[in-house]
Amino acid sequence: MADNKKMVEAITSMEEDFAQWYTDVVKKAELASYSGVRGCMIVRPYGTALWENIRNDLDARFKALGHENIMMPLFIPESLLQREKDHVEGFAPEVAWVTHGGDEKLQERLCVRPTSETVFCEHYADIIQSYRDLPKLYNQWCSVVRWEKTTRPFLRTMEFYWQEGHTMHETADEAWAETEQMLGVYADFCEQSLAIPVIKGRKTDKEKFAGAEATYTIEAMMHDGKALQSGTSHYFGDGFARAFDIQFTDRENKLQYPHQTSWGMSTRIIGAIIMTHGDDNGLVLPPAVAPVQLVILPIAQHKPGVLDKANELKERLAKIARVKLDDSDNSPGWKFAEYEMKGVPLRLEIGPRDIENDQCVLVRRDNREKTIVKLSELEEKISELLQAVHDGLYQKALARRESMTYTATTMEEMIATADEKPGLIKAMWCGDEACELALKEKAGVTSRCMPFEQEAISDTCVCCGKKAEKMVVWGKAY
Amino acid sequence: MADNKKMVEAITSMEEDFAQWYTDVVKKAELASYSGVRGCMIVRPYGTALWENIRNDLDARFKALGHENIMMPLFIPESLLQREKDHVEGFAPEVAWVTHGGDEKLQERLCVRPTSETVFCEHYADIIQSYRDLPKLYNQWCSVVRWEKTTRPFLRTMEFYWQEGHTMHETADEAWAETEQMLGVYADFCEQSLAIPVIKGRKTDKEKFAGAEATYTIEAMMHDGKALQSGTSHYFGDGFARAFDIQFTDRENKLQYPHQTSWGMSTRIIGAIIMTHGDDNGLVLPPAVAPVQLVILPIAQHKPGVLDKANELKERLAKIARVKLDDSDNSPGWKFAEYEMKGVPLRLEIGPRDIENDQCVLVRRDNREKTIVKLSELEEKISELLQAVHDGLYQKALARRESMTYTATTMEEMIATADEKPGLIKAMWCGDEACELALKEKAGVTSRCMPFEQEAISDTCVCCGKKAEKMVVWGKAY
Repeated sequence: MADNKKMVEAITSMEEDFAQWYTDVVKKAELASYSGVRGCMIVRPYGTALWENIRNDLDARFKALGHENIMMPLFIPESLLQREKDHVEGFAPEVAWVTHGGDEKLQERLCVRPTSETVFCEHYADIIQSYRDLPKLYNQWCSVVRWEKTTRPFLRTMEFYWQEGHTMHETADEAWAETEQMLGVYADFCEQSLAIPVIKGRKTDKEKFAGAEATYTIEAMMHDGKALQSGTSHYFGDGFARAFDIQFTDRENKLQYPHQTSWGMSTRIIGAIIMTHGDDNGLVLPPAVAPVQLVILPIAQHKPGVLDKANELKERLAKIARVKLDDSDNSPGWKFAEYEMKGVPLRLEIGPRDIENDQCVLVRRDNREKTIVKLSELEEKISELLQAVHDGLYQKALARRESMTYTATTMEEMIATADEKPGLIKAMWCGDEACELALKEKAGVTSRCMPFEQEAISDTCVCCGKKAEKMVVWGKAY
Repeated sequence: MADNKKMVEAITSMEEDFAQWYTDVVKKAELASYSGVRGCMIVRPYGTALWENIRNDLDARFKALGHENIMMPLFIPESLLQREKDHVEGFAPEVAWVTHGGDEKLQERLCVRPTSETVFCEHYADIIQSYRDLPKLYNQWCSVVRWEKTTRPFLRTMEFYWQEGHTMHETADEAWAETEQMLGVYADFCEQSLAIPVIKGRKTDKEKFAGAEATYTIEAMMHDGKALQSGTSHYFGDGFARAFDIQFTDRENKLQYPHQTSWGMSTRIIGAIIMTHGDDNGLVLPPAVAPVQLVILPIAQHKPGVLDKANELKERLAKIARVKLDDSDNSPGWKFAEYEMKGVPLRLEIGPRDIENDQCVLVRRDNREKTIVKLSELEEKISELLQAVHDGLYQKALARRESMTYTATTMEEMIATADEKPGLIKAMWCGDEACELALKEKAGVTSRCMPFEQEAISDTCVCCGKKAEKMVVWGKAY
């Protein structure tokens, strides 16, 4: 059994090697481990519980807006994947192909879904006939597979878990509104439930989804200054509808193509949680999705009355929070380190002297602040402190992002900033893809998004110097 | 828009063609539809909502007993599948093989999981070292793929959804207890939540799971007298542990192999719900898992006050049940038929005269019984009636099973009964597989299980006439 010191020593510090720190946290917090299949992870019980909380929170938000869940097949016939040209070009190089069923060679190869636009469209062609059938607001929770060359747990894995919403609408306006609405749902979820501040914006054409007319994104900044695309929402127009022959009779009895959206958030978001809030003691979880919100640690638990009191508190507090009592025979020091590593937002310590005084100690994970609390006031204080942890995490992340966001008006400035200062860089862009490519080549940055909240940094393109009206956020990204 | 009559006519009657009736219900109740991939179904929103309720109910039962969810990779390398001999023989002929990732041919084929014993074992070998690491009580919710020749929605599909529990224990006794406990969870769930009576028993060696030492099963009888295996729980002993080299240090500091179980319930259970409770008007759903428990249908909804009242009731009743208000412009007759087809347990009708009298009409789906209820007593009455629907469904299914269960003491009797009377047949068996095969060949029945509750039908084997101590339930099965 490791003692406190050993546990803490076992993690590389962020400063020393951020990538190794990340891997250590994933492993030591028991979020995920590698499987025998290259690039496929095992999401361990603690990581799965975290994902279930994320899923339940998002799912309730989707359903409150009228969306319904559906379960689509895992396999897509090759001919179906090929129906929309841009889409197949984007995905065919990175799909897994099933060629045999048992001993029998298949007449047509099936790909394991990398995303499900095509099967949704095939189904929509079956069930949409009239404007009365619209809108269709479907979502599914599943795993998808993309044959990635290099992988990292949660950030980029061959198989990952996500939800994919696919909706069909009577008018383009309605579909645009859905695209924006769902981006708003993701942003609200990140800020309200994950304490992660995000920038909402639109992707440049170069960065948009294969087959989409427009891709909206939320971008978050990680501890090391890199950006992480945390959720996307796509407007498709009627491109897929035309490719899949989906038509409906409108209110004037004319045949029309419906307008489509899709939107997704994946287990990548767990990577964002780790790299936004984590520290050198391990994971720090936002209270809204933490599998355990409060861990009760009895002190001198062999003393009479301590375990009884701890059990009594556990039962009582389970009504207001997700509570765990650790009454194992590990030392308090080992337990402190263990639950810090696992990012549990609040720790409650209770020992013989506390019991005498009708009090206990609450310790925040995010800043280690201790509060002595009367047992009679526990419910109130715990709710307050969980909120305080959330707010503290959000404010710290926001302050970090602000302090690590720069502007550039010339290419020299851009290159120097990208080179010397980890973070995001706001700069104007003329709209030409050649400038994007040049920025990638010379400064090593890509366009993260054109934020909805624009600022006038200058009036010329940071790359070519031509007139420019769009502010783009540039950065290095996961 | 179809009217009442048209809807009802559109279903084949059970009497006329049970298989066609089943297909009609799946389609008209919008539970599932076929996809472009042979044998893979699309579980539509109504079917998905039903599955989500089943999943949430079962998941809570598992977690209450200390089980944790985990998410394992979709792919299994061919060499891993081959580690346990019986297991690979059972599954290799029916798996889907991935041979290419993008353009690249894989060095080793990957199968799409048909079940996950092998990947769980590989992971357990990594994480189990000491008796302190035991028990491991893991479960996962996922889809699996088996390359079936003939398929029917829910009953047998190439891809289906399920949960698979995989546990590891310090002792054989503990693993046997877990195997029995989980069968009990399935039986309780079927009876308490699905209103489906089941027979608990053990499979014969011929019918047990590939690689298991023992398979326990719950068997339900469908409306047509056929049996449906509704959930299974397997005891593995240490066979897989030896094949996968999983060892732990016991309390005496000696190396031991742990003892293993696995258990699963799948979307087949939706087939069981349909074929146990359905009737010629469509689906009949048990209240505990029905996506909509109560549908509110306003009568003469254009009259002033009707829709306001219906909306008020919806908000009020949403606190005690899953409620839907249908205020579309379809006729009441159409709506009656529609929600009967969808199996909604209770219908609430409210029109202008009801409002005047401070009352409404509640109609049970299972027996169409109408009750006039004071609005002030609605909550109480709805809870009572939902319970009454559940009890009514259970009793009806139990009475049917009892009236369609026979005994046989000779082969002639067995053949005649199997031929003339749909249902189950209790008969003694000597334990010899040759007799099982003969019964299959001559009477067309298979052994469903050796029930835990044994009866002494006779003292000789129904087939060979030798001394026999085991009573087996025989039947035709899905």
